[in-house]
Amino acid sequence: MSNGINNLEEGNPKYAESFTQGHLALPPSQRYTVITCMDARIDPTSAFNIPLGAAHVIRNAGASVKDAFRSIVISQQLLGTHEVLVVKHTGCGMLTFTNDDAHGLVTKNKGEEGAAEIKDLDFLTFPDLEAEVKKDVQWLKGKKLEEGVNISGFVYEVETGKVRKVE
Amino acid sequence: MSNGINNLEEGNPKYAESFTQGHLALPPSQRYTVITCMDARIDPTSAFNIPLGAAHVIRNAGASVKDAFRSIVISQQLLGTHEVLVVKHTGCGMLTFTNDDAHGLVTKNKGEEGAAEIKDLDFLTFPDLEAEVKKDVQWLKGKKLEEGVNISGFVYEVETGKVRKVE
Repeated sequence: MSNGINNLEEGNPKYAESFTQGHLALPPSQRYTVITCMDARIDPTSAFNIPLGAAHVIRNAGASVKDAFRSIVISQQLLGTHEVLVVKHTGCGMLTFTNDDAHGLVTKNKGEEGAAEIKDLDFLTFPDLEAEVKKDVQWLKGKKLEEGVNISGFVYEVETGKVRKVE
Repeated sequence: MSNGINNLEEGNPKYAESFTQGHLALPPSQRYTVITCMDARIDPTSAFNIPLGAAHVIRNAGASVKDAFRSIVISQQLLGTHEVLVVKHTGCGMLTFTNDDAHGLVTKNKGEEGAAEIKDLDFLTFPDLEAEVKKDVQWLKGKKLEEGVNISGFVYEVETGKVRKVE
């Protein structure tokens, strides 16, 4: 099954046909970085109103700033951004299991050989959504490398499409 | 300066007002995962034709599958996806510097205290775009945890909006 390839092959030629933004520069024109979850229900461009070329968008499971730190440093130190929006969301999968659950499930499904490939992996799950937004914002603010960067935290509601500021 | 917050506060209420997709489920309905770069010039939803709710979208500097591995494992082992599209792009920042360049620049700009926060960090830069797509696809294919997963690699052209398959 190749849903992803099918979608891409069907839609990309149309996108390219009407594409007019080939002149955009590498550094984000509005000098900010959004960190959000990989969740399929989030469309950052539309939901957060990000113009093409304006901002870096980093996405991972749970919108973890620790997991994103390599990309954040590159965004700021090499490409000149100085504002970070951390946007986690309601109904996040990371709220539904623990690190031990995940390791247990992988071992059950893929055996010891599979489990060995992630034996030291921290899945970075969390039990409380708003607390985790605050924790991530504070963690970033504590870094010397983030001096002078404007860092804020939000929750996106997958049920309503609304974003609210929490930090 | 708060370009990101301004954009969000201006656009999100309009998005939420016409939002009708609050019923979507947590697991991606089309069971695939896209890994692409954080680059500001990429809008995966439109360029790769991803319906809302259909796919996980992971983004980091350079679309590195190693950096994304935690999220990939969660996508597949906990949320049931079984197709991966790796999409790197022309004009990527990761082609323009080396790991040593990045560490040197951070030390120059932020001093030893700043540099210490990333002293063991591999920036995961690469010198050859297509070779890196192939390398990432092969790296994933070599994992026991990826058995049965359909993995392919692409290049997105920021100059034309076109995607082409390379692996």
